[in-house]
Amino acid sequence: MYTVGDYLLDRLHELGIEEIFGVPGDYNLQFLDQIISREDMKWIGNANELNASYMADGYARTKKAAAFLTTFGVGELSAINGLAGSYAENLPVVEIVGSPTSKVQNDGKFVHHTLADGDFKHFMKMHEPVTAARTLLTAENATFEIDRVLSQLLKERKPVYINLPVDVAAAKTEKPALPLEKESSTTNTTEQVILSKIEESLKNAQKPVVIAGHEVISFGLEKAVTQFVSETKLPITTLNFGKSAVDESLPSFLGIYNGKLSEISLKNFVESADFILMIGVKLTDSSTGAFTHHLDENKMISLNIDEGIIFNKVVEDFDFRAVVSSLSELKGIEYEGQYIDKQYEDFIPSSAPLSQDRLWQAVESLTQSNETIVAEQGTSFFGASTIFLKSNSRFIGQPLWGSIGYTFPAALGSQIADKESRHLLFIGDGSLQLTVQELGLSIREKLNPICFIINNDGYTVEREIHGPTQSYNDIPMWNYSKLPETFGATEDRVVSKIVRTENEFVSVMKEAQADINRMYWIELVLEKEDAPKLLKQMGKLFAEQNK
Amino acid sequence: MYTVGDYLLDRLHELGIEEIFGVPGDYNLQFLDQIISREDMKWIGNANELNASYMADGYARTKKAAAFLTTFGVGELSAINGLAGSYAENLPVVEIVGSPTSKVQNDGKFVHHTLADGDFKHFMKMHEPVTAARTLLTAENATFEIDRVLSQLLKERKPVYINLPVDVAAAKTEKPALPLEKESSTTNTTEQVILSKIEESLKNAQKPVVIAGHEVISFGLEKAVTQFVSETKLPITTLNFGKSAVDESLPSFLGIYNGKLSEISLKNFVESADFILMIGVKLTDSSTGAFTHHLDENKMISLNIDEGIIFNKVVEDFDFRAVVSSLSELKGIEYEGQYIDKQYEDFIPSSAPLSQDRLWQAVESLTQSNETIVAEQGTSFFGASTIFLKSNSRFIGQPLWGSIGYTFPAALGSQIADKESRHLLFIGDGSLQLTVQELGLSIREKLNPICFIINNDGYTVEREIHGPTQSYNDIPMWNYSKLPETFGATEDRVVSKIVRTENEFVSVMKEAQADINRMYWIELVLEKEDAPKLLKQMGKLFAEQNK
Ligand SMILES: Cc1ncc(C[n+]2csc(CCOP(=O)(O)OP(=O)(O)O)c2C)c(N)n1
Ligand SMILES: Cc1ncc(C[n+]2csc(CCOP(=O)(O)OP(=O)(O)O)c2C)c(N)n1
Repeated sequence: MYTVGDYLLDRLHELGIEEIFGVPGDYNLQFLDQIISREDMKWIGNANELNASYMADGYARTKKAAAFLTTFGVGELSAINGLAGSYAENLPVVEIVGSPTSKVQNDGKFVHHTLADGDFKHFMKMHEPVTAARTLLTAENATFEIDRVLSQLLKERKPVYINLPVDVAAAKTEKPALPLEKESSTTNTTEQVILSKIEESLKNAQKPVVIAGHEVISFGLEKAVTQFVSETKLPITTLNFGKSAVDESLPSFLGIYNGKLSEISLKNFVESADFILMIGVKLTDSSTGAFTHHLDENKMISLNIDEGIIFNKVVEDFDFRAVVSSLSELKGIEYEGQYIDKQYEDFIPSSAPLSQDRLWQAVESLTQSNETIVAEQGTSFFGASTIFLKSNSRFIGQPLWGSIGYTFPAALGSQIADKESRHLLFIGDGSLQLTVQELGLSIREKLNPICFIINNDGYTVEREIHGPTQSYNDIPMWNYSKLPETFGATEDRVVSKIVRTENEFVSVMKEAQADINRMYWIELVLEKEDAPKLLKQMGKLFAEQNK
Repeated sequence: MYTVGDYLLDRLHELGIEEIFGVPGDYNLQFLDQIISREDMKWIGNANELNASYMADGYARTKKAAAFLTTFGVGELSAINGLAGSYAENLPVVEIVGSPTSKVQNDGKFVHHTLADGDFKHFMKMHEPVTAARTLLTAENATFEIDRVLSQLLKERKPVYINLPVDVAAAKTEKPALPLEKESSTTNTTEQVILSKIEESLKNAQKPVVIAGHEVISFGLEKAVTQFVSETKLPITTLNFGKSAVDESLPSFLGIYNGKLSEISLKNFVESADFILMIGVKLTDSSTGAFTHHLDENKMISLNIDEGIIFNKVVEDFDFRAVVSSLSELKGIEYEGQYIDKQYEDFIPSSAPLSQDRLWQAVESLTQSNETIVAEQGTSFFGASTIFLKSNSRFIGQPLWGSIGYTFPAALGSQIADKESRHLLFIGDGSLQLTVQELGLSIREKLNPICFIINNDGYTVEREIHGPTQSYNDIPMWNYSKLPETFGATEDRVVSKIVRTENEFVSVMKEAQADINRMYWIELVLEKEDAPKLLKQMGKLFAEQNK
């Protein structure tokens, strides 16, 4: 019998989803039977629901869609912070919540995982601000509703919420007749007008610059943008909120623009442009040096998913994807000016203790093509976000939502989504402590990320903002290098190391990159109050913002 | 200068709060300075926010109020599931959320930890269904609003939410002039009427029974109830949702009533009563053998915080605490009937592998006075909830909300709230995996609970409901006994053991009980599909409810 559960899973598969994350509960076990009985879907059980939502977010960044399953009440509310992050940063994540039978819900029974007030709508309501669409499925509405919310997910690239009662998952239904409606990526009049404005402006400009942001990644337009700038040789920068929207090995990639915290020649280059094309950019405090950007709106065309601004004139209702995909078809644009000088330096290690500044130089120098760098809020993000990536590399961080602990599950989720790209995670000790339990999953799934744990004895990023020596920025000191063994690893699968010096760092990094079959778990011992220069500056600006 | 932060902390202290849990963030660091500068308040930093909310819930169960601090967005949403549990099970927990300055909020800036849409009210709104009151503080409204929400907390014993912008915490204000209004616990006309109805009914009854529920504990009425039944010798039972509402060592304590899953003579006794006095009881699926209770409403007076039902007649607006506190003043009530036979058996251990049934017999036999038993959902709760506790003991579980992982932080929170009562935690391997990181906190704070980790290779409670051999009920196998060392423990502070047989269990349990200065971490190796009889029965009923 073909059921609602089958329909939902067929639709998810159409979105490219091949793995589903989550935690079982008695309201979703039947649906889990449906998942594990399929050849084209794999169940990946998490240690807890917040981690599942983070992992799905990481998967969505790489595969452009993800799904996770929780149980009613306790499960969904544990995950809601992860979903909020996906909402803030535009990641298309489907949350499926297994709920009590329609009869139990309609009868308002006082069952477990409810507030025992007979109202089963509370939790769906709580999801309103952080989802693009929500639905409570019935046997009758299921196919329509599933298609409705998934179309919304495709349109906005934001999370959606599907409440699936036990009995509905098992109810009979029909197979989909048509593919899930895809957004048309065709250019009609409005899109044509926008494109010709861009064309004209680029042709007239002497000093144009392109700024790409996170929506490029959400909508899977990295290749389109890369092709556009590589053909036109246009200078391009991204925010850290959008890093790797373009292939950073292109000669015309300038580096990361970050308001007054930008590298000075980059800042001057960008801020003196006579035409700015912004693609999918959102200007938030952590990506603009706390709003110290100077970008002249009179010289700007800015395209976002929900609106375009063409020299201060707002345009709505246009197809963002269609416009961006068509940029490379513009004719006769070729940039012939100068770029700024980029200095790549070889990293020559010494026997000195590893410092933050030297660490990130080493990472920039040693990172390779086809890698994915994942950097947690804290010294990691501020260190890693400004390095130049090699070709075909990706970057994952969460500068807007900034929920620490996020990157460990996210790195694993993304590693599952793309097993070919080796994932390098940089995460602080404080952040790791929030979500460490997924180490068990990484071991069980035989994943091979290279994880660097920055052990600097507490919350260094906070020390930079406020309270450098206050006790609340201290954390319990764990034996980080023993974690893999404790979480079930054997040495043939996971290598655990402690690194204190530059020499050690370089040799372990090279060893790990060469050994693609094992996970590496590398504790980096760093000074408590050492931080990348960028973080020191940012800390001051954030302290100012809090006054 | 006396500030809003001081005012808030003074009020919390008035509620008996001496420790504040939580996680720092740049929007709450200034307020943290205020906390740690006080002599009468201790900051206890958690590994993550969900754990903080669980820990506060455990603290509130024991101290009758608790508070925890998070940062805006990322922190509060990570904790919301814990708060929902406190709401469902009536625990007075204050969540303080440090938020961006009033100016940043009023200007609608796109700052970190927001959805970057300029709206700072989303997250407060998301808290509506799971808090009794919420407030966004300003320098002007702060004293009034703090008192308003804390009074609501006292009235309903449910969580409240306080949004504290950085600048408001530091704003000047006046010290409280009057103590925080306490609910009057005096009996006026309505209360007198209820009391005389109860008196009359008890005098006329031949076979009365008292049933106590969780609200007795929420409102700190355990002593009142215990005094009442010990003086009148009335037979009393509790639900598992309310276990330890009365001292279980009283001769008239019958055991736990649980619908058709009750011990048979207890079931007959309760269901054939000619008068039932229910105090603070809520009848939910997991505490009534999935609604198989038979309690005659025509013979019942039932008192809850929000209403009373006197032989089917609803009474509102009465003071629940006043009525319950006055029960022991009723004159001329003395029960002279029989109780049911209770069989206490000495536990004689053998060298056999430990089984679930024998484990709980052993626990019942070995547990001592003044202990607190904490039992996680799963085999632990179903095993521990029916044992008879010794005098002056308490029990913590979460049968309605049932969020697994809850009990580990909750046990630590309660242990902090009452350092004299040794805490014994029973938790499954699956559940521990959700919240394990607080082991670091337990070590740092030098807590001394006795933690039993039931290692039965997965989610046994779920196997009983559905999918006994399905892969989704498997979990990664950790080296549980290595966790303390990995999380920073030294042997002089934490003892780690593995127990496989009855003999080992008894000897380790006795050793741990005698050694009050160290934490014990005891892995109990049990069969994958072994479960307490009660759970096997309950699993079938829950499977039925899901059809
Ligand atoms: C869920 C969540 N809780 C709290 C915070 C506030 N916060 C931001 S950074 C940080 C400390 C991170 O410390 P660590 O990971 O050790 O980084 P590093 O020492 O490398 O700076 C905290 C607590 C947050 N961003 N997210
Ligand atoms: C937060 C949350 N997620 C999921 C569930 C569903 N659930 C209930 S019990 C359980 C398994 C518990 O397993 P374990 O702790 O190992 O207990 P035992 O083996 O002793 O039964 C799960 C996953 C839940 N109750 N709460």
